[in-house]
Amino acid sequence: MSDLRVPEAQLRNYITHSMAALGLPPDHAACVGQLMAEADLQGSDGHGVIRLPPYSRRILAGGVNVRPDIKVIEERAAMALIDGDNGMGHLVMKQAADLAVEKARRCGIAWVGSRFSNHAGPASLYARMALPHDMIGLYFAVGNANHLPPWGGLDMLLSTNPIAVAIPALQEAPIVLDMATTVAAYGKVKAKAQRGEMMPEGWMIDREGKPLLDPKRSEEGFLTPIGGYKGYGLSLIVGLLAGTLNGAAMGKAVIDFNKDSHSVSNTGQAIAVIDPSAFGDPLLFKQRVDGIVREMRGSERMPGVDRIWVPGEQSQAKRVQYGEQGIPIPPALLQQLDALAVQLKVPALRDTRF
Amino acid sequence: MSDLRVPEAQLRNYITHSMAALGLPPDHAACVGQLMAEADLQGSDGHGVIRLPPYSRRILAGGVNVRPDIKVIEERAAMALIDGDNGMGHLVMKQAADLAVEKARRCGIAWVGSRFSNHAGPASLYARMALPHDMIGLYFAVGNANHLPPWGGLDMLLSTNPIAVAIPALQEAPIVLDMATTVAAYGKVKAKAQRGEMMPEGWMIDREGKPLLDPKRSEEGFLTPIGGYKGYGLSLIVGLLAGTLNGAAMGKAVIDFNKDSHSVSNTGQAIAVIDPSAFGDPLLFKQRVDGIVREMRGSERMPGVDRIWVPGEQSQAKRVQYGEQGIPIPPALLQQLDALAVQLKVPALRDTRF
Repeated sequence: MSDLRVPEAQLRNYITHSMAALGLPPDHAACVGQLMAEADLQGSDGHGVIRLPPYSRRILAGGVNVRPDIKVIEERAAMALIDGDNGMGHLVMKQAADLAVEKARRCGIAWVGSRFSNHAGPASLYARMALPHDMIGLYFAVGNANHLPPWGGLDMLLSTNPIAVAIPALQEAPIVLDMATTVAAYGKVKAKAQRGEMMPEGWMIDREGKPLLDPKRSEEGFLTPIGGYKGYGLSLIVGLLAGTLNGAAMGKAVIDFNKDSHSVSNTGQAIAVIDPSAFGDPLLFKQRVDGIVREMRGSERMPGVDRIWVPGEQSQAKRVQYGEQGIPIPPALLQQLDALAVQLKVPALRDTRF
Repeated sequence: MSDLRVPEAQLRNYITHSMAALGLPPDHAACVGQLMAEADLQGSDGHGVIRLPPYSRRILAGGVNVRPDIKVIEERAAMALIDGDNGMGHLVMKQAADLAVEKARRCGIAWVGSRFSNHAGPASLYARMALPHDMIGLYFAVGNANHLPPWGGLDMLLSTNPIAVAIPALQEAPIVLDMATTVAAYGKVKAKAQRGEMMPEGWMIDREGKPLLDPKRSEEGFLTPIGGYKGYGLSLIVGLLAGTLNGAAMGKAVIDFNKDSHSVSNTGQAIAVIDPSAFGDPLLFKQRVDGIVREMRGSERMPGVDRIWVPGEQSQAKRVQYGEQGIPIPPALLQQLDALAVQLKVPALRDTRF
């Protein structure tokens, strides 16, 4: 059975209807629908509609507040701290990004952190929110499950704590880096297990520090940080900046949202926005970014390498391709979504109007 | 022959005298002396007095301006861009850090970039400048020689572009991460070559992408980025934020300061400072950092691991140890420094008063 292809607007409306049925106000439901569908549109399929069933489970278990009062609780000229009131993370970080852009326009740079937020989907979505304003966005988050011990340790005290950075270009696609501080994200391990494949060496280690290759045994080991102790350091720093600084969960306080649907996660995130026009002519900056992109792409290549990629080019290509051809929904996922539609009394995805 | 041990003040004065003899004004010479000696004090011995002979060569060749007019050329409430006028990088980044702290106090966060700066020693020195103010420091720099191609490429278009972050704690040592975006810094390769040792697999690859183990053949290969394409992405982003955004050199425009002593390097760096007191009670923040440090250290350990380290603990221990016992100067380095003292007509290191 082949994948169903759905237009982005259809997927967006389906998610919006589901969120409204779960009790979110119409504007909140539409915001979450738009951002989750955008995740799928750019190929971040581990963070898009695939999350709707677990989000629904969490909302129905009372683990997420569907009527949050999201508000700024600390503020200076170039920063703010937002309390998400345990609302959907997408809502909290959309508000954070909008505020950071506004403050960066005045101050040159701004930083907005969150506490009592929740999982917000792919990091790059929020870093990208600076791009329409010709600004640079940086995003940091505490992951919602610990999969990483400190370097040399056995207790899983750290998450894959991602970093995303989006930098506008002129004629080239924007540069968008979106990376976990581990060699592989945990979603990739789950995908290997589903497909019955072994993992390459380097993704995970067991409790003796030896390579772990069978993804079905993933509970017996840990993700490995990039660059060994360096990735451990990066994950720790991201956790302190996005979590501890905001009074959000970090370390032992992080709950595993795969296993616990009702506890408040107190997720912390942070977004920083830099306005290049504060540094000089913004057009000149974007031209220089184009130049760097072309230098990288124009490099002589190793044997067997067809093309040199710049971060963000592949997801940009997905946006174009899926925008034209629709977003692929695999049969197993569609079955889950159909069951959810029955449960929530909303039209099935293929019957959703757009 | 064993290492000479010199008090930090003696090393500082020796460097200060040398810089003054090279033509720097007294206050500039003292600032460079203090920062270079501090690098050695914390064990960053690849970035301390070992750099005095190459710095001197560069200054004498006219590659560095000894009487720079370092000034702010762009400014908003929370940002500034400093033109270093091709002065020593230490001077430029000290001024940048002081300004960033002042702006962060008012705005909650600040970001100061540099152009026409030069090599400034270890990244951590500048991130650490936020610590006495109970603030968080982040530092990014474009390295002064390209050792890294884009992922899959052969042209060395990127440097080890380091990241440093310093976070204050209460009773624990501050957390200080200072890392190149490559598995090994190039200085470590040079050290292996000097000692006649082979490199471990993973540090470098040759032009076919195969592991390169002989450091004497380092010119035939490249440093490897941490986490493969992720480290390439990080190095690129750091270069864009610390270089391109500031109108400083990046990519092909970066000159190799090991091979070219006279061209203006147009080095770019950036420092960001965050004031935790903008986010709530700063004492509470530092207590929470202590708590996270202790969680990491208290983790159960892998077989054979004696202790779990938090980034910055080892350099903090060096600061205490070398503060008490003096800074070790290896015989080969001392010989170079003695020859330099004769050339510059300053007292030799061991004869320097303090």
